[in-house]
Amino acid sequence: MAASRNDLFDEITHRLGISFEEEIRGGANYEVSVENDGQLFISGMIPRVHGEIVVTGRVGEATSLEDARRAAQVCILRCIAVLSQSLGSLERVKRILRVNVYVQSAADFTQQSEVADAASDILYAVFAPDGGHTRTSVGVYQLPKNASVEIDMLVAIRENSPAD
Amino acid sequence: MAASRNDLFDEITHRLGISFEEEIRGGANYEVSVENDGQLFISGMIPRVHGEIVVTGRVGEATSLEDARRAAQVCILRCIAVLSQSLGSLERVKRILRVNVYVQSAADFTQQSEVADAASDILYAVFAPDGGHTRTSVGVYQLPKNASVEIDMLVAIRENSPAD
Amino acid sequence: MAASRNDLFDEITHRLGISFEEEIRGGANYEVSVENDGQLFISGMIPRVHGEIVVTGRVGEATSLEDARRAAQVCILRCIAVLSQSLGSLERVKRILRVNVYVQSAADFTQQSEVADAASDILYAVFAPDGGHTRTSVGVYQLPKNASVEIDMLVAIRENSPAD
Repeated sequence: MAASRNDLFDEITHRLGISFEEEIRGGANYEVSVENDGQLFISGMIPRVHGEIVVTGRVGEATSLEDARRAAQVCILRCIAVLSQSLGSLERVKRILRVNVYVQSAADFTQQSEVADAASDILYAVFAPDGGHTRTSVGVYQLPKNASVEIDMLVAIRENSPAD
Repeated sequence: MAASRNDLFDEITHRLGISFEEEIRGGANYEVSVENDGQLFISGMIPRVHGEIVVTGRVGEATSLEDARRAAQVCILRCIAVLSQSLGSLERVKRILRVNVYVQSAADFTQQSEVADAASDILYAVFAPDGGHTRTSVGVYQLPKNASVEIDMLVAIRENSPAD
Repeated sequence: MAASRNDLFDEITHRLGISFEEEIRGGANYEVSVENDGQLFISGMIPRVHGEIVVTGRVGEATSLEDARRAAQVCILRCIAVLSQSLGSLERVKRILRVNVYVQSAADFTQQSEVADAASDILYAVFAPDGGHTRTSVGVYQLPKNASVEIDMLVAIRENSPAD
């Protein structure tokens, strides 16, 4: 029997040496996710692990491509962790609709797609064959708390988890 | 009886000393809002009041955090004004789904979330208990007409206004 | 009889001297489009023609407003080409819901809306009277492969093409 998405998620976070707090929360005045009419919106996630931003700085200057890819992995895993806590099970995900990847970039850093690939690869690993998604990657000038990467996501969901 | 959302909106704009033109329009070739299948999309709004951009310049350099928060308030109130004119009544808003906050930032300005909070607070004040929303805040390099902040929004709507 | 959208699209690409590859594809790990529940999402498109990015560099510095508008035209035509290949026919487009326009900007370049207008004009030319759309235009610091402009799109679709 194939590994469940929840198992795959746990395996990847474990392999990358990451764990998240029990409950991921938004600020006082916004939510980490909102569900409406078969869609789940997820707020922009920065590479935060237990309250600390683990990759900061401008990519291509203070921060390497490799570190930026690591940041993208943490962001997307945090998105998936929010999915999991919001839906109860990752099996309720029908399709990843859109992923926006914002990279705090140096003036001449043009590999935003290569940064985003690290996030997309994880979506495929966890949700295949339904991991396909649209994506927009841009290079921004700053991000909250000097994070190197920020990612948000929109997901189509099933009303109920299918039987195994 | 609780104040209506329309009254709360009027009260906040009055308190902040803002009023908008009779009808808010897009350019010649785009719309301020598009309604489709229970969702209302709102175009990116800059802090324009009666044709004038009231807060301009790079935040953390030419423009203070306080002024940027004021800009975010004007942007979100303008979004709500568009909601109101598009829907007839703010009571038709079912849920705020997503808010994107773009802040024209200095190289080392990392308080985009604090800017966005000023907009989120107003959404809560007007739409509570349905003001909860997802949010993405990023620091961009420039914005149309040198605006300090730009905000767009997606809202879930009811087909008809509920009876009072 | 009015020209069909497909004919209008062909006419505009021909007039602008552009043609696209047989099939437009995403990367190894993301899709150019995802369809779900009456909506079609399109990934961020840069001004690529047969594998070459035809307009690069920072607008207002290395690149002129005129060239940036040309870039926006190529991006939106590429989005429409993806629509066409994904839907079979442009007649299945019900409404353009949202267009995001990212412009790689110089520090003092504030005409992002004028760049975006070049894309919006094409949407009107092809989809009138249903070309109306919401739009957000921002000035970013860099874009993948040093592209001057990137555009993504969300479209409402009909389940079946209407009879002519």
